[in-house]
Amino acid sequence: MAEQKKLVSEITSMDVDFAQWYTDIVKKAEMIDYSSVKGCVIMRPYAQALWENIQHTLDGMFKATGHENVAMPIFIPESLLQKEKDHVEGFAPEVAWVTHGGTEKLEERLCVRPTSETLFCEHYAKTVRSWRDLPKLYNQWCSVVRWEKTTRPFLRSREFWWQEGHTVHATAEEAMEETLRMLNIYATFCEEYLAIPVLKGEKTEKERFAGAEKTYTIEAMMHDGKALQSGTSHYFGNGFAKAFDMQYTDKNNTLQYMEQTSWGVSTRLIGAIIMTHGDNEGLVLPPRIAPTQLVVIPVASHKPGVTEKAQELLEQIKASGIRAKIDLSENSPGWKFAEYEMKGVPLRLEVGPRDIEAGQCVLVRRDSREKTVVKFEELNTVIPRLSEEIQQALFDKALKNREEHTYTAKSLDEMKEIMKEHVGFVKSMWCGDLACEEKVKEETGMPSRCMPFEQETISDVCPVCGKPAHKMIVWGIAY
Amino acid sequence: MAEQKKLVSEITSMDVDFAQWYTDIVKKAEMIDYSSVKGCVIMRPYAQALWENIQHTLDGMFKATGHENVAMPIFIPESLLQKEKDHVEGFAPEVAWVTHGGTEKLEERLCVRPTSETLFCEHYAKTVRSWRDLPKLYNQWCSVVRWEKTTRPFLRSREFWWQEGHTVHATAEEAMEETLRMLNIYATFCEEYLAIPVLKGEKTEKERFAGAEKTYTIEAMMHDGKALQSGTSHYFGNGFAKAFDMQYTDKNNTLQYMEQTSWGVSTRLIGAIIMTHGDNEGLVLPPRIAPTQLVVIPVASHKPGVTEKAQELLEQIKASGIRAKIDLSENSPGWKFAEYEMKGVPLRLEVGPRDIEAGQCVLVRRDSREKTVVKFEELNTVIPRLSEEIQQALFDKALKNREEHTYTAKSLDEMKEIMKEHVGFVKSMWCGDLACEEKVKEETGMPSRCMPFEQETISDVCPVCGKPAHKMIVWGIAY
Repeated sequence: MAEQKKLVSEITSMDVDFAQWYTDIVKKAEMIDYSSVKGCVIMRPYAQALWENIQHTLDGMFKATGHENVAMPIFIPESLLQKEKDHVEGFAPEVAWVTHGGTEKLEERLCVRPTSETLFCEHYAKTVRSWRDLPKLYNQWCSVVRWEKTTRPFLRSREFWWQEGHTVHATAEEAMEETLRMLNIYATFCEEYLAIPVLKGEKTEKERFAGAEKTYTIEAMMHDGKALQSGTSHYFGNGFAKAFDMQYTDKNNTLQYMEQTSWGVSTRLIGAIIMTHGDNEGLVLPPRIAPTQLVVIPVASHKPGVTEKAQELLEQIKASGIRAKIDLSENSPGWKFAEYEMKGVPLRLEVGPRDIEAGQCVLVRRDSREKTVVKFEELNTVIPRLSEEIQQALFDKALKNREEHTYTAKSLDEMKEIMKEHVGFVKSMWCGDLACEEKVKEETGMPSRCMPFEQETISDVCPVCGKPAHKMIVWGIAY
Repeated sequence: MAEQKKLVSEITSMDVDFAQWYTDIVKKAEMIDYSSVKGCVIMRPYAQALWENIQHTLDGMFKATGHENVAMPIFIPESLLQKEKDHVEGFAPEVAWVTHGGTEKLEERLCVRPTSETLFCEHYAKTVRSWRDLPKLYNQWCSVVRWEKTTRPFLRSREFWWQEGHTVHATAEEAMEETLRMLNIYATFCEEYLAIPVLKGEKTEKERFAGAEKTYTIEAMMHDGKALQSGTSHYFGNGFAKAFDMQYTDKNNTLQYMEQTSWGVSTRLIGAIIMTHGDNEGLVLPPRIAPTQLVVIPVASHKPGVTEKAQELLEQIKASGIRAKIDLSENSPGWKFAEYEMKGVPLRLEVGPRDIEAGQCVLVRRDSREKTVVKFEELNTVIPRLSEEIQQALFDKALKNREEHTYTAKSLDEMKEIMKEHVGFVKSMWCGDLACEEKVKEETGMPSRCMPFEQETISDVCPVCGKPAHKMIVWGIAY
């Protein structure tokens, strides 16, 4: 137990310093290593396995809705990036520029893609001719580069991994339908797989993606009350189509501009999992997405038959479709308990000589530490049931945290009062004016998160200017 | 049938111009599109789906042998690339350099990774402490950039997609075992999934990877007799370990250098599939790797019940685990036949009104055009059988092509004679001297491919210098 204490004491308490707690977790749970490339991280096997589970599930959801994967070049010529005015203004200040190939200076600079709208536009302009070719529903999994000044693993780094969907459609209606379909897929995925409740809503004009007509978002609340924008889906109308001359012939043989969308989620979701479910002992992973769902730890494994029984149980559990592993290392059981708590493995199975005599073992939940004595023959029914209970409990706890840190304000003063004592979501009405949005940010430090699809009437007027307001908006400090 | 002829006539005959035939295929089968980034290509959905099948299968083989995936940064600082002398000499002339982040000039140039040895070395130097941490068996799937002068889709491009395995071990024996294990996995994969026979062997010192002590290769022969290096596995010894100070404490508490390997295959394998199996009608894909294994084409689909029956058959076939699709577009059956032949779909199922009356349909093999009439109730047994027959037939045909284009030479003159009339593999003895290897290349245009594991004795002497020679080597012009 000495070792266990030592290990856990290496994590800063989340109540003392949440940012340091987060950094400790990503290092100690072996998710991230820093490289000599400033602002770029190494995704170690444990983070990569988590990301692959996310990819696998989302990719299945994309393909089930008719999307196909492609791979676009990593580079964008400067002239191509500049074709859409708002887009280049949004991204040019934060791109990495390639100026030399080998020893030769390039005739034109290339940027390492910060996002790939321009490449998809160029491709669609060339390959889509007629209404018969529409819609095109493409996605790619890749990494992108944005030259951020301050970085934090998973949340903001110079390189990050993501998927970017880019679709073109014959009509605005279809494109809008797609934009919302993908937002809903993101929300479903976050809630059902990551156990993270999300607010769905529309971004204000100020917070829109560079070049979009509408940006929709899912906003999650972290344990400390701060928001994390966890996925976005954009409706472009035909703005890019006009800039890139993306036309098709409709059923009446008339040239029309395509209607377009894009949508993405990134390795940021790993940050969301850590900060939503983690505790002072380390990670807490939702069973549906955990690389290892259960770890078998033999106790007093030097006693005859213990290791053999533990391995037999492992095989039985794996055969039932659970992602399970066993730790047969020479470390003490106490060390192992702490290690897999740190790693957030949802269930631990302990089995020792006396358990074996009684034909049973002990299952320990990572989230609640609750112990259940289970007969060997009941493992295959109890493990899935406990896993589902953990999944639900994590969601419920996160939802409760969000509800406890969601506030309502009818005036700017009220918002300022709330901000003095709390961190969380603040709901208020909003007249729709940029000036009022900026004033709130200036006075409270909170940018707008979104105008939620689920609206409530808090008052009749804008808390800033006092003019009539019909929209509810949510404010919050974000990562 | 007019449309069919038109479509097929768009492909240059492979006997007239093999290079143009290849370019036609990658364009017309919608595998590749060019972007405005010179030397970089777009992998369209069909190529990407093929690559994902390759990835999925290989990734499973890697994980079954204990490997874990990671993601390393896309950039390498210039000083890090320079740490291993041979390595930097090999790669520095062909890397893309990032010099600016946003508007700021970087203090140190970063290259876009051409390969990631240096990043893995740095990570292992930091994270591996003791023999208990070894071996580390890491792999990553990513794209890399090499500033090639002349490019060709899949075979040589400025960006390509690949996997790179990088492992460290306690002993030279273990590292060598790993090097050969991975070469064997590549060979098994190529032969069993891609139906491509490969020569396994060791590269000469001249052809070794920059920084490796040994490089092993699998060499495939394309339809035109040229070689394609299809995968390599490198044994590094402790050369990088010394340059990067990668040490661990062994069981006797003594500091030791790690022993290292790396190995990779790339989207080049797609080029290998095209040039090994393709014909004048287009792609021919091996069933085990084909994105679509069978396409259902209703004939006279305006007749009542035809479309319904075709869809029913599709569902039945998909339910049996076959990757199948249906074409219900308004194009003529003739157009569709040509289209899916072009795409290389291994089996076509034709079903029309008279077939339905007779309770049967027609299966047409892409490779041989052979037609089989099959009762509906027998489809689930006949389709897998035919698929396996196609898989085997493609392998046999490729092996026959290789055997027919493999020559034996006892003298340099004999080699030159062969080269005048044929393109293929030329086997000879070799004394091991670089001068003789260079002389063969100079006089015949053929670099060495490898010293095959399966050796034969062709004569007692080197065909160039006449000195005693105990090694058989294979020469060949390569892509």
